[in-house]
Amino acid sequence: MTATVRAALRQLADGSASAASLLASCVERICNPGGEGARVFPHGVSMAACKQARASDLMREYGVAGPLAGVPISIKDLFDVQGDVTRAGARMLPEQPAAADATAIARLRTAGAVFVGRTNMTEFAYSGVGINPHYGTPRNPFDRAGERIPGGSSSGAAVSVSDGMALAAIGSDTGGSCRIPAALCGIAGFKPTASRIPLDGAVPLSPSYDSVGCLANTVACCADIDAVMAGEDTTPLAPVPLAGLRLAVPSGLVFDGVSDEVAGSFSRALRQLSAAGARLQDVHFGSWDHLAEIGAGGGLVAAEASAWHADLLTAHADAYDPRVLSRIRLADAQRASDYVRMLARRAALCRQADAELAGFDAVVLPTVPIVAPRIADLDDDEAFFRVNRLLLRNPAIANMLDLCALSVPCHRRGEAPVGLMLFGRHRADRRLLGIGMGVEAALKR
Amino acid sequence: MTATVRAALRQLADGSASAASLLASCVERICNPGGEGARVFPHGVSMAACKQARASDLMREYGVAGPLAGVPISIKDLFDVQGDVTRAGARMLPEQPAAADATAIARLRTAGAVFVGRTNMTEFAYSGVGINPHYGTPRNPFDRAGERIPGGSSSGAAVSVSDGMALAAIGSDTGGSCRIPAALCGIAGFKPTASRIPLDGAVPLSPSYDSVGCLANTVACCADIDAVMAGEDTTPLAPVPLAGLRLAVPSGLVFDGVSDEVAGSFSRALRQLSAAGARLQDVHFGSWDHLAEIGAGGGLVAAEASAWHADLLTAHADAYDPRVLSRIRLADAQRASDYVRMLARRAALCRQADAELAGFDAVVLPTVPIVAPRIADLDDDEAFFRVNRLLLRNPAIANMLDLCALSVPCHRRGEAPVGLMLFGRHRADRRLLGIGMGVEAALKR
Repeated sequence: MTATVRAALRQLADGSASAASLLASCVERICNPGGEGARVFPHGVSMAACKQARASDLMREYGVAGPLAGVPISIKDLFDVQGDVTRAGARMLPEQPAAADATAIARLRTAGAVFVGRTNMTEFAYSGVGINPHYGTPRNPFDRAGERIPGGSSSGAAVSVSDGMALAAIGSDTGGSCRIPAALCGIAGFKPTASRIPLDGAVPLSPSYDSVGCLANTVACCADIDAVMAGEDTTPLAPVPLAGLRLAVPSGLVFDGVSDEVAGSFSRALRQLSAAGARLQDVHFGSWDHLAEIGAGGGLVAAEASAWHADLLTAHADAYDPRVLSRIRLADAQRASDYVRMLARRAALCRQADAELAGFDAVVLPTVPIVAPRIADLDDDEAFFRVNRLLLRNPAIANMLDLCALSVPCHRRGEAPVGLMLFGRHRADRRLLGIGMGVEAALKR
Repeated sequence: MTATVRAALRQLADGSASAASLLASCVERICNPGGEGARVFPHGVSMAACKQARASDLMREYGVAGPLAGVPISIKDLFDVQGDVTRAGARMLPEQPAAADATAIARLRTAGAVFVGRTNMTEFAYSGVGINPHYGTPRNPFDRAGERIPGGSSSGAAVSVSDGMALAAIGSDTGGSCRIPAALCGIAGFKPTASRIPLDGAVPLSPSYDSVGCLANTVACCADIDAVMAGEDTTPLAPVPLAGLRLAVPSGLVFDGVSDEVAGSFSRALRQLSAAGARLQDVHFGSWDHLAEIGAGGGLVAAEASAWHADLLTAHADAYDPRVLSRIRLADAQRASDYVRMLARRAALCRQADAELAGFDAVVLPTVPIVAPRIADLDDDEAFFRVNRLLLRNPAIANMLDLCALSVPCHRRGEAPVGLMLFGRHRADRRLLGIGMGVEAALKR
């Protein structure tokens, strides 16, 4: 049976599990010497996790239980957790415990979640591959012997869930960092509309695009975690029935370079959605044709990253992952006026996209066009950057157009994981999650 | 008697004036061959003004009268007025009539205002001096024979009011463009919190700082016009009593280079405010010490102007006022990451300033440190840019810190005009206007 947040909450409520026993099961997986624990949690299990779990159990005894009370979740090493050092997958940030939780983390804490530990990630979240030269690269759960990339930047987040080290994982998503590893590792990954969840207490990559997302075994798990982080109503969402839903299948670049595995899984998924009553329609979105204009020369991300990193670069350029450094350095050639024009162009494209999406309940497309390649095949920089571009291409559309987005597994058991991505309109997050639950159910039949 | 919006509305209501007669009186002043009409309205009286006035009178006969019905106002050549060409004081914009009113203008139209014509301005609003090499420079009403600058960029706006060509003038304010000419010409000028009044349909200078303001003979006039442009309650404001009001007098740079005339008028004004019961307190605002960081190398304004002007510069660099061109070109040396850092620094300074202002009802300081110099004395570029910096220095603080601000005349009749500036907290616009009415009354005693 799939480990889900709702199943855990039922067990906690009926006494068949405790926060301590759920945590113990996660810790057992983390400490398995043949497993990925050390690469997923390079700084170990959180010192406070046991206390949090015991406190949660005591509180529950006295009848006090928040909406996530006792649920073990992992936190990407990008978010401040009071008392923990935030390293953002890098080696040069000050080794100083955070004075306070990031807002999203504080909300999870208040809701009763137990923080298992801090997950590994691409340095500063600046690539979609998931390779980290400092702390190791967690192996993809599929074909583990083949040593495939987990996808990134929330690499440890995805593997923490796929390997049972946490029931859900908190990640960030600037260009696909929740959805890419979710798709490559065969789990669900959600990126909210950026402004819905506060970003304070997170190391920024690109404030224009950064968002606080989550990864878990099911869409319902993501919906439950998301409601808490957004400070919204935590009543469990129900699946939206697919009958009559208008789903757009975008033509164009998003299908370029799609591998046979992805094409096969994706087209089978479309048939399943159609059989469930969804009305699929091929659509050309004019706004998507112009996205290259706001991504050229590093785009908004390089400019904004470069601004945040300026002082660090002066002192510690040598300590960076050279692949991350080279992407930040793209901004050296960007002029202030180019940036201002990109911002204005982006705002116009967001308006255009919103109008184009008005007639649809969601957009469906492959999350990424390939299945996870082997880590060793990306030793070469040219191959690395080619794959990185390919992985980011589709997911980043949602960040650029300020949409919400979800990746749902659509492969058959035993096959290489493939993600089907859903885009929803700006701020239509809860509706998209409900649709995602309906899609997930249809794909499982 | 001072010509005010409220007096005009009373006359219109009791039938002692009509919209047509008020407009006729303005047109008479505009057409006075010895006057400034041709330099204030280089494109003449609006073709539609007579129709607007006649329609207003007919409507009033039938009992229909908006809050500004029949009030003649002038519109800076920066805002779209349906059917008119917006030139922004330049020679190279397409000579194409605007398809629709700017939102602020549409609200004035709905309220019944009569649009006398489009006022002259600094080219693209990019200086505080008010000299325009293409359409002439309206002479300051004080010492007209001396040919002094009106201040800018809303140069024609100020003179349209001071010379009775309109009862109020719509201007824009990015670094002082309403308050500088108001101070130098001896009238009131208001700059709202930028986000309060929509900027669509206005040629942008710097979207971070641009705001839609107004100039008029009294603060009450400004308050009445502002309420309409902001889409807020148009119930006439009453003066706030000064007794017990906490007014901060900022120490530091804002008093550097203050001329004897300004120092004399300003300190007399402080004594009058004190006599009226206001509690003045010398204050050092730490946030103000760091404003140079966000103004360096052209600051946000040059970057944003450069972005908007990029295509025009390619085609028409020769047609620009060289002094404006050189300021836009400052941005060529600004990197995208510098701009991103300035934006973040600005946001932090706004938060700091807001906290520092919490204990005060308003800040009082000289609008500008000098009285209007002669136009001929600024032929030299070095003198021009020195005076420009001096004029912008104090008013721009309110734009940089996202405050509202008001300039109120504080000189004695017959002396060179001097403005006393009031700053209010972000979004405390209506309160500041009420305080300004109280200040104005105290200064007139």
